[in-house]
Amino acid sequence: MDLHDLTRELHQRNESKIVLLVADGLGGLPLESGGKTELATAATPNLDALARDNVCGLMTPVLPGITPGSGPGHLGLFGYDPLVYRIGRGVLEALGVDFDLGPNDVAARGNFCTVDESGVITDRRAGRISSEVGSRLVEKMKAIQIEGVELHLRHVKDYRFVVILRGDGLGGDLHDTDPGAAGRAPLTPTAANPASQRTAEILTEFVTQAGEILKHEPPANMLTLRGIARRPAIPAMQEVYGLRSVAIAVYPMYRGLARLVGMTVVSGVNDLDQQLEALRGNWAAADFFFLHHKYTDSTGEDGKFDEKVKQIETVDGAIPKILELKPDVLIVTGDHSTPSLLKSHSWHPVPVLFASHTCRPDDSTQFSERDCLRGGLGQFEAKYLMPLALAHAGRLQKFGA
Amino acid sequence: MDLHDLTRELHQRNESKIVLLVADGLGGLPLESGGKTELATAATPNLDALARDNVCGLMTPVLPGITPGSGPGHLGLFGYDPLVYRIGRGVLEALGVDFDLGPNDVAARGNFCTVDESGVITDRRAGRISSEVGSRLVEKMKAIQIEGVELHLRHVKDYRFVVILRGDGLGGDLHDTDPGAAGRAPLTPTAANPASQRTAEILTEFVTQAGEILKHEPPANMLTLRGIARRPAIPAMQEVYGLRSVAIAVYPMYRGLARLVGMTVVSGVNDLDQQLEALRGNWAAADFFFLHHKYTDSTGEDGKFDEKVKQIETVDGAIPKILELKPDVLIVTGDHSTPSLLKSHSWHPVPVLFASHTCRPDDSTQFSERDCLRGGLGQFEAKYLMPLALAHAGRLQKFGA
Repeated sequence: MDLHDLTRELHQRNESKIVLLVADGLGGLPLESGGKTELATAATPNLDALARDNVCGLMTPVLPGITPGSGPGHLGLFGYDPLVYRIGRGVLEALGVDFDLGPNDVAARGNFCTVDESGVITDRRAGRISSEVGSRLVEKMKAIQIEGVELHLRHVKDYRFVVILRGDGLGGDLHDTDPGAAGRAPLTPTAANPASQRTAEILTEFVTQAGEILKHEPPANMLTLRGIARRPAIPAMQEVYGLRSVAIAVYPMYRGLARLVGMTVVSGVNDLDQQLEALRGNWAAADFFFLHHKYTDSTGEDGKFDEKVKQIETVDGAIPKILELKPDVLIVTGDHSTPSLLKSHSWHPVPVLFASHTCRPDDSTQFSERDCLRGGLGQFEAKYLMPLALAHAGRLQKFGA
Repeated sequence: MDLHDLTRELHQRNESKIVLLVADGLGGLPLESGGKTELATAATPNLDALARDNVCGLMTPVLPGITPGSGPGHLGLFGYDPLVYRIGRGVLEALGVDFDLGPNDVAARGNFCTVDESGVITDRRAGRISSEVGSRLVEKMKAIQIEGVELHLRHVKDYRFVVILRGDGLGGDLHDTDPGAAGRAPLTPTAANPASQRTAEILTEFVTQAGEILKHEPPANMLTLRGIARRPAIPAMQEVYGLRSVAIAVYPMYRGLARLVGMTVVSGVNDLDQQLEALRGNWAAADFFFLHHKYTDSTGEDGKFDEKVKQIETVDGAIPKILELKPDVLIVTGDHSTPSLLKSHSWHPVPVLFASHTCRPDDSTQFSERDCLRGGLGQFEAKYLMPLALAHAGRLQKFGA
């Protein structure tokens, strides 16, 4: 059963407004036995008040034990089964540099590397060259021209860049050219199916020309390509839910993920205050608002427990300004957990809070992992978040008579 | 995985008796923040005692956020995945007037409507004519004869009736003739697949003849047809569970739904006392007893909180009489929630109580949504209710060695 067949059939429009506030990497762990998580430590009077009057739960991003990247994490939130809609690494990198990827474009993540005289890789990351060097080399490679295809190159960071091919008849199923370990030469771009044969030939020509340009630039005297892919064909939120959706995110990758599901993307917002202003400014024009706060995740990734606590408190401070707009449904959650203890994304379920007059209240007294565990929403897979959001907003007709 | 493949393989017979008491629309919401639901408000000493000694939980009727109609709600309770077995509106209407629908019959819900001189609909409900008028017009239409097919007409209520075709080679996949809004003429009955072509021709002839009869009967001078369908092919409870099942319901639609899954239907019961008497009377003859109480739903639909509370208390009053029969498993639940606050069915999980000497008791002290949230059965999809019922009754062998 494709959940979207159900939401396509049942959705109805009304005047309701839904806000999805994503504190990236929200869930956490205590630093020591008997301690509190970042969320339980943070002073969050606004979120706690919402938790008391409304309903909480825990959300499994993909499946129990599975830690999602940002792509699957967000697709799940938007109601797209991350096991069905897979986003290639190249596509994610392109989104991350705000590249407006077309449906037929093929994107690949590029890594500069070092090869010896026989062409064997000695360093897969080219001695971790600086962004300054990496960016200069990407500029040089822009001289490359290949008949019949538009080539777009963007530097990402350090030794990383992204290659985008735009043209007709480009399949997106190719094997990585990164052999996965030093001691071997980069592999030739190879199609995984006949439809990708032309892409393989173009990328082979690209690598040949790039090799000529880079051969005098050690340690970055060669490159490898990974995650060569087209963007997945994803039905738009408007079509599957009947929602006019707006994304308000500071970081390009999250704007890109929102664009993939057909959201209108607000640009030029650089902090949470500007995001809240953009929310107000777009209030009349849309039904669904995705607000993304990055720093709860990045502080967790850095292992900075106290800073993550502060970022959660910052998110809490935004709540009254959102409530001023009187959303019919306000959802506060994360795309995954990022416990400072682990300095990485994790599989732990993510706290989620629904505030709506159609909630069935539970016993939660605080917005914390422990309260959410006893919450009325129970533990559910992220792909059910959107059906629940639509239901609470009165946007789903009943199923069957 | 079809759950019924598992129950077919594993079920075994014994002398146990299972009672499923359905308080329709049982789950609710508080009227105001901090308030209690209908169930938590009701004085239910008998249900509370059962909750204390046994096990509770919450049941998701279909999927999170999905509000079921009565058809999907009950199919779920009986262990039939409502996403797999879909019941057309016409079929449900036929069941609702106690029509014994054959497996090859095609049923359609009919609406009288008003058309102007050019045949364009000006009122899709014919000015909401009375049941008296509607019933007289249905009687007049019984004069219609169509070669090679039996035609059955039943008045339902007001401007609504049901048309049943009985004969060979009638497909049941047709589009509605109701254009969905006034300002357009009724559509011609159209087959959605070649197997339904003959049905389309018969219904076109029916509409032509009916138009002749109705043209002098404004405001009900035309009709539309919706939900044209055959009943789904549903394996019987006897076959999938090895249960001899009896349905004891006051309202025809619930008897009809029970008939769809092969239950024996008790007729001539008009209130709960008579239902309890019928339960006693049929006790020796069956293994599984479905008792349906409608008024917890209808009071909720009417937004009458206090009356719904009283109906729940009525259900509670029936418990001692059921326990006198010493059922091995007594299940008390609903097919969905019907919060008085929303005056409609809702997606909120439904409280469920299992009383059996094979229960693993939990911390519940009362039969309420909050206690059920902490209940030992957790939150589960309705389609697992029957496997749990069979298990508690000792009617499922172990799976694998």
